[in-house]
Amino acid sequence: MKKVINLGLIGLGTVGEGVIKLLKKNSSIIERKAGTGIRIRKVCDLDPRKRKVLKKYNLKPEVFTVKAGEVLNDKDIDIVIELIGGYEPAGKYILEAVRKGKHVVTANKALLARRWPEIFSEAARHNALVYIEGSAGGGIPVIQSLNEGLSANRIKSVLGILNGTTNYILTKMSKENISFKKALKKAQEKGFAEADAKYDINGIDAANKLVILGSIIFGAHIKPSEVYCEGIGKIMREDIGYAYNEFGYVLKLLAILKSGGGAIEVRVHPTLVPRGHLLSSVDDEYNAVYVEGDAVGKTMYYGRGAGMMPTASAVVSDIIYLSKNIHNNIAGRAPYILCDPKRKLKVLDINDIRTRYYIRITSVDKPGVLSRISGALGKHNVSIASVYQMAYVKQKRDVPIIMVTHLAREGDIKKALSEIDRLSMVKKKSILIRIEDLDE
Amino acid sequence: MKKVINLGLIGLGTVGEGVIKLLKKNSSIIERKAGTGIRIRKVCDLDPRKRKVLKKYNLKPEVFTVKAGEVLNDKDIDIVIELIGGYEPAGKYILEAVRKGKHVVTANKALLARRWPEIFSEAARHNALVYIEGSAGGGIPVIQSLNEGLSANRIKSVLGILNGTTNYILTKMSKENISFKKALKKAQEKGFAEADAKYDINGIDAANKLVILGSIIFGAHIKPSEVYCEGIGKIMREDIGYAYNEFGYVLKLLAILKSGGGAIEVRVHPTLVPRGHLLSSVDDEYNAVYVEGDAVGKTMYYGRGAGMMPTASAVVSDIIYLSKNIHNNIAGRAPYILCDPKRKLKVLDINDIRTRYYIRITSVDKPGVLSRISGALGKHNVSIASVYQMAYVKQKRDVPIIMVTHLAREGDIKKALSEIDRLSMVKKKSILIRIEDLDE
Repeated sequence: MKKVINLGLIGLGTVGEGVIKLLKKNSSIIERKAGTGIRIRKVCDLDPRKRKVLKKYNLKPEVFTVKAGEVLNDKDIDIVIELIGGYEPAGKYILEAVRKGKHVVTANKALLARRWPEIFSEAARHNALVYIEGSAGGGIPVIQSLNEGLSANRIKSVLGILNGTTNYILTKMSKENISFKKALKKAQEKGFAEADAKYDINGIDAANKLVILGSIIFGAHIKPSEVYCEGIGKIMREDIGYAYNEFGYVLKLLAILKSGGGAIEVRVHPTLVPRGHLLSSVDDEYNAVYVEGDAVGKTMYYGRGAGMMPTASAVVSDIIYLSKNIHNNIAGRAPYILCDPKRKLKVLDINDIRTRYYIRITSVDKPGVLSRISGALGKHNVSIASVYQMAYVKQKRDVPIIMVTHLAREGDIKKALSEIDRLSMVKKKSILIRIEDLDE
Repeated sequence: MKKVINLGLIGLGTVGEGVIKLLKKNSSIIERKAGTGIRIRKVCDLDPRKRKVLKKYNLKPEVFTVKAGEVLNDKDIDIVIELIGGYEPAGKYILEAVRKGKHVVTANKALLARRWPEIFSEAARHNALVYIEGSAGGGIPVIQSLNEGLSANRIKSVLGILNGTTNYILTKMSKENISFKKALKKAQEKGFAEADAKYDINGIDAANKLVILGSIIFGAHIKPSEVYCEGIGKIMREDIGYAYNEFGYVLKLLAILKSGGGAIEVRVHPTLVPRGHLLSSVDDEYNAVYVEGDAVGKTMYYGRGAGMMPTASAVVSDIIYLSKNIHNNIAGRAPYILCDPKRKLKVLDINDIRTRYYIRITSVDKPGVLSRISGALGKHNVSIASVYQMAYVKQKRDVPIIMVTHLAREGDIKKALSEIDRLSMVKKKSILIRIEDLDE
């Protein structure tokens, strides 16, 4: 039995510091749970000025290094914690660590999403474990729940609010009736959005997390390129208002996985969910994952999806689990995340999905408009569930016509809208937002 | 490596049948996750007529037995699944199984709550594991989440809706404005309440589950007798209405654990939570556990807390985990649930808790009443946050005076109310309901 488990941390950013802070703060709880001592043996960051961070936590300055090799080549280090993010050198470090039989904890969602089969195959080959609780859903233990707690289920669907930045922006747009631009600025001021929030706003961050959750569920890799991805950059506050006031929907950026009928759906896009549904109440920077399994039924996991201490909570829980197993000399003797490179998943083309839609058409206000529009929709098998047209318009100008459709095939509704947009009476490109009804 | 893991199931009730059904239905997913074959070798039930259940699932009749000994003494059985419920002979069977080095899966909350230290010490002594995911929160993987996913946290509070029957009853009383009696009848008709729902209604079932969650969190046994417990049998729909309409609160039966200041609070009672808070939207037979940790912040776990397939989902997930570890010859080499019999927890007396209260006093409508009442409250350090008194009363008769207090000590408010109830103008015993403000 190993008396003390030695950690090597690579990447001393916000989360890295959170991990050191939490290991220090709750050391008695952590060591009791692990059943063994846990020591930070090396901390590596390229920026030598970071050395002073260690002082705050009473770590000796010689623990710090700017050379990753001093972590990876240290025979006494049992667990490497990779928190630098990005593809390289993070990928190289993780592979090198597992090849040396070290276990790894990482929260690197972009890297995992891209190189999933390689990382887990290489880890399995060397009886090393790669634990990734912090890579999706932040502090919410949703990865373990999907991988173990719900493992007896055929998962029918996952609907996730997986990006705190966009959820904060949409909450502000909705509750304070402000524009996307203003809401983004607010998020940046509050620290819920980086200066460059591109990968949050365009949905890529949520798509990477969906790849992780889906790959766990199916024991196979869903490629990031297979996820249809649409961000929130073009969302107008009018649509949030109309959808809420006229039809009772709340707008969220959802990461959606559906399974059944021989193919899976994986997509990230702005989505209307019914007001009153639990997901519609997940506000601000919070995340939630709504999972339906054939045995368990509907479940939801809610909490902070990012930030220093929530992510540290996930990373340190992985450290505790691995330490306990290293201490008892059984770590890596049973696999955790399975990935069969031979298992292929068929992903449905976005044009073949069937859902309900909110559409907004901007047209001149004259007789016959509605008939032309509904004619075009009908021709493409899209039937209208309800229509809202403003009753009174002050000046004679373009008016919005808003509709909610019944279930329709996406390819069909897109064809209909492109026909509608070519009508002379239609003045702007029409807006299309998918609806998720989540019927109980 | 063991090629096939053999199960012995004791207790073929609803959940027992659910386990067989799920193992059959999702066998390919289950065996892929476990990495090994899983076989039901013996099924035991005292009632010989249950033998015919096996036929539905293509199990041979000789798998069935009425003698538990045939399961416990079978050397080939690796995992015993105890689903008979109650204290005995369930307790005897579990202890016998672990003494023979068999691992155990159980959902027996009453037994676990009462004999926690004995069961886990005996299991540890024999390197056997006792897995209990189905014992609280049904299909929601909340036990694993508390034990592992949140293990790096100091848990500040747990607020649980842990009993589906009472949550169904309170939802109906609230949404359909019906009496407790009518709502109970409805729950029984719908199958959400047993004919004898005593342990649901009086809060004992929720208290047992709170004991389990709390004992996991602290790695020590909280005794059921230490949990203050008050059921929903005396709840009047008027109070649900007043609290909702006048003060914006929704009534739930909450199981509450709080930690800090040298003592813990463990209590189950009807509780008002703010309308709009996630917990207030947990309706019908659903359960939810709202957990706050010092690092992770606020998290919530939601799903069905009971029923054939949700509970089977939890039990089979335990079977998968144990099977994987037995197959790899490491099961029992590291502990799962820790219980240190020497760790003592100080539990705060219910009279020493501090919270806010809803009170309803029934009094004759004459001048000076409010002054007498507020005088009695003030004398005992209870200050009033808001008062609601009906503006207009048709006939001259008793009127309700409803108040919400600021934070007060429970012992103080009880003394004040007992003084108030002795006033000649007060016509009925006053009503007291605790409030949980859950401030964000």
